[in-house]
Amino acid sequence: MSGTDSMEPAAPEWIAVDWGTSNLRVWLMDAQNRVIAERHSDKGMSSLSAAEYEPVLLELIGPATGSARRLDVICCGMAGSRQGWAEAPYRAVPCSPVDFLAATRVETNDPRLSVRILPGLRQDVPDDVMRGEETQIGGFLAEKPDFEGTVCLPGTHCKWVRIRDGKVLEFRSFMTGELFALLSGASVLRHSVDTDEFDQEHFLIAVMDALNAPQSLTSELFSLRAASLLRNVAPVATRSRLSGLLIGTELAAARSFWQDQPVAIIGASGLGRSYQAALESQGNTAEICDVAEQTMRGLCAARAAWKEVTNAT
Amino acid sequence: MSGTDSMEPAAPEWIAVDWGTSNLRVWLMDAQNRVIAERHSDKGMSSLSAAEYEPVLLELIGPATGSARRLDVICCGMAGSRQGWAEAPYRAVPCSPVDFLAATRVETNDPRLSVRILPGLRQDVPDDVMRGEETQIGGFLAEKPDFEGTVCLPGTHCKWVRIRDGKVLEFRSFMTGELFALLSGASVLRHSVDTDEFDQEHFLIAVMDALNAPQSLTSELFSLRAASLLRNVAPVATRSRLSGLLIGTELAAARSFWQDQPVAIIGASGLGRSYQAALESQGNTAEICDVAEQTMRGLCAARAAWKEVTNAT
Repeated sequence: MSGTDSMEPAAPEWIAVDWGTSNLRVWLMDAQNRVIAERHSDKGMSSLSAAEYEPVLLELIGPATGSARRLDVICCGMAGSRQGWAEAPYRAVPCSPVDFLAATRVETNDPRLSVRILPGLRQDVPDDVMRGEETQIGGFLAEKPDFEGTVCLPGTHCKWVRIRDGKVLEFRSFMTGELFALLSGASVLRHSVDTDEFDQEHFLIAVMDALNAPQSLTSELFSLRAASLLRNVAPVATRSRLSGLLIGTELAAARSFWQDQPVAIIGASGLGRSYQAALESQGNTAEICDVAEQTMRGLCAARAAWKEVTNAT
Repeated sequence: MSGTDSMEPAAPEWIAVDWGTSNLRVWLMDAQNRVIAERHSDKGMSSLSAAEYEPVLLELIGPATGSARRLDVICCGMAGSRQGWAEAPYRAVPCSPVDFLAATRVETNDPRLSVRILPGLRQDVPDDVMRGEETQIGGFLAEKPDFEGTVCLPGTHCKWVRIRDGKVLEFRSFMTGELFALLSGASVLRHSVDTDEFDQEHFLIAVMDALNAPQSLTSELFSLRAASLLRNVAPVATRSRLSGLLIGTELAAARSFWQDQPVAIIGASGLGRSYQAALESQGNTAEICDVAEQTMRGLCAARAAWKEVTNAT
C-alpha cells in the first residue's frame, strides 16, 4: 500500500493512462479532474501481450476498483498500436489532434471497466506517424486554443508539428534520439563518449557546423572517432558534439517548421532545453512546457468529450 | 593438415598479413612473390591481447616455419593500432600511401620471426584516419602509378581518397556501413528490413532522393518505418531504400571527390557494385577492383622496399 492509499482517498471517477513503448503512467482522477493518485510501471507495450494489459492496469489501480461502479479508462500511446492492447487506427492529418469519438473501445473481462484508446495520427506524404504525441498537443491546445505555429516534441523520434486553427496541418519525425542512443551505446564512438556530462559550448558549435553542412553528418560522425584517437578529445566534448551534430542536422531539415515561426517545445528535460538552446542560437525564442502536464490535460479534454457524449444520449 | 600442405610446398620466403578488426588473412609467399598458401582466421584485433598475436600467427603459418631461417612478416591493418600487436603511429597526409621505412618493428619470442607493421594515415583538418586501406591504395598505385583521381573504399567506414603524383592528398571517411548495420540490426527499422534481398531500382531512387535533400536523412529514416506501418512496404524495398539513403547522403557530401573525377572503387563485393551503380546514375563511370588483390600487391610493394633496404646495408 502506498502512502496515498493509506489516506483513504475518494474513489476515482475515471482513470487516465499514458501507455508507452517501455513505460506506463496511470492517474486516478476525481470528478473535478483532480489527481487522486499517480502510479508508474515499466510494463510498456514492448513487454506485453494483448491479454496482459488488463491485469497490469487492475494491479496498478489497486483497491480503488473495489466499488461496483463503472470505471472509465482513457489511454493514449502505444497501447493503441497493432502490437498493443487493441488497435486504434491512425487518423489522417490535417485534423484536430484529439477526437474522442474516434477512440477504440476495448473489451475487458472485468465488467466494471470501460476502456477507450485514443488513436494516433498519420500523414501520407511524406509517410509519417505519431502515437501519444497527439494527446500532448491536444493538452497544449486546450490551454492555448489560438496557438498558431509549430510544436516540437523531442524524444526517441523527435516530431515537428505545424498547428493552425486548433488542427495539426502536417508533421515530420526525425530519428535523432534513437541515433544518439545507438551511436553512443553500440558504435565505434561508444569509447569516445563514455560520460553523462554535457557541454553547451561544444554542443552549439556542432549545431552551427551541422546547419552549415548538414549533408556531412555521416563523415562528421567518423571525425569524432578520429579526433578522439588523434587528439585525445575529452568524452564530454565528443558527446556534446555528437548531440549537436544530430540536432543541428535535424534543424536544417526542419527549417520551415521553425524559421520565423512561434515554437513551443513539449519537453522540459535536458533534451528539451538542448533544443531550446539550439533554436535560441538561431534567433528563435521557443517556449518550453512539461510533457506529463500536457498529456494529462489532453486526456482530460478527451474525458470532457466522453461526458458530453454520455450526457447527450 | 590442409590439402595445400600435403603437396609439400616450398618453404615460404616471407609472410604477408592483413590483420583487421574482426578477421585476419595470411599469405605464405615465395621469393617471386607468388602465393604458396593462404590462411584465414576470425582472430581479429578486437578479440586479441598484444601477447596473443604471435601464437595466433605461428599457428596459422603452421609447419612452414620448421626451417631455422629468418622469416620476414609484413602486416597491415588494425594490428598496428594502439590496442593491437604494437602501435605503428599514423603518417600524416599528404604522403605516399605505403612507406616501408616507417613500419614498426615488433619484438617476438620466436627468434626466426622478423615482423614489421605498416602504419596507417592521418589527416588533421578535418580529423580522419585509416588503417589498412592505405596498403590497398599502395597496391592499386603499384599497378597504376600514374592514376590521378579518387579511390573509393566502401566498407564499415567508407573512404574517399584523392590521389595525385602517387600520393594521398586528402581523404574523408563516412560511417555509412556501420550505420546501415546498426539501423538494420538494432533500430526500430529492424522489423521493416528483415531480408537479405536487394532491389536496385528502389536503391537508385533513394540515392537520388538523398542527393536532392541530404539534410533530410534522419527524417527519411523514420519515414521508412512509417511507410512500413502504413503501406506494408516489402522488406526488400525498405532495405534497398535504407542503403540508398545512406549512400546517397554520402555521395552528396563527397561530391568534390567524384564529380568530374576518375574514380576507382576498391571492393568488388555487392557493396562495391552498389557504389558503382550509384555513381553511374550520376554520370560517373567508376572502375572496380578486388580488395584482396590490391592488399596483396601493396604488401608486395612493401616487401620489395624491405629487400632494397636489406641489400643496401
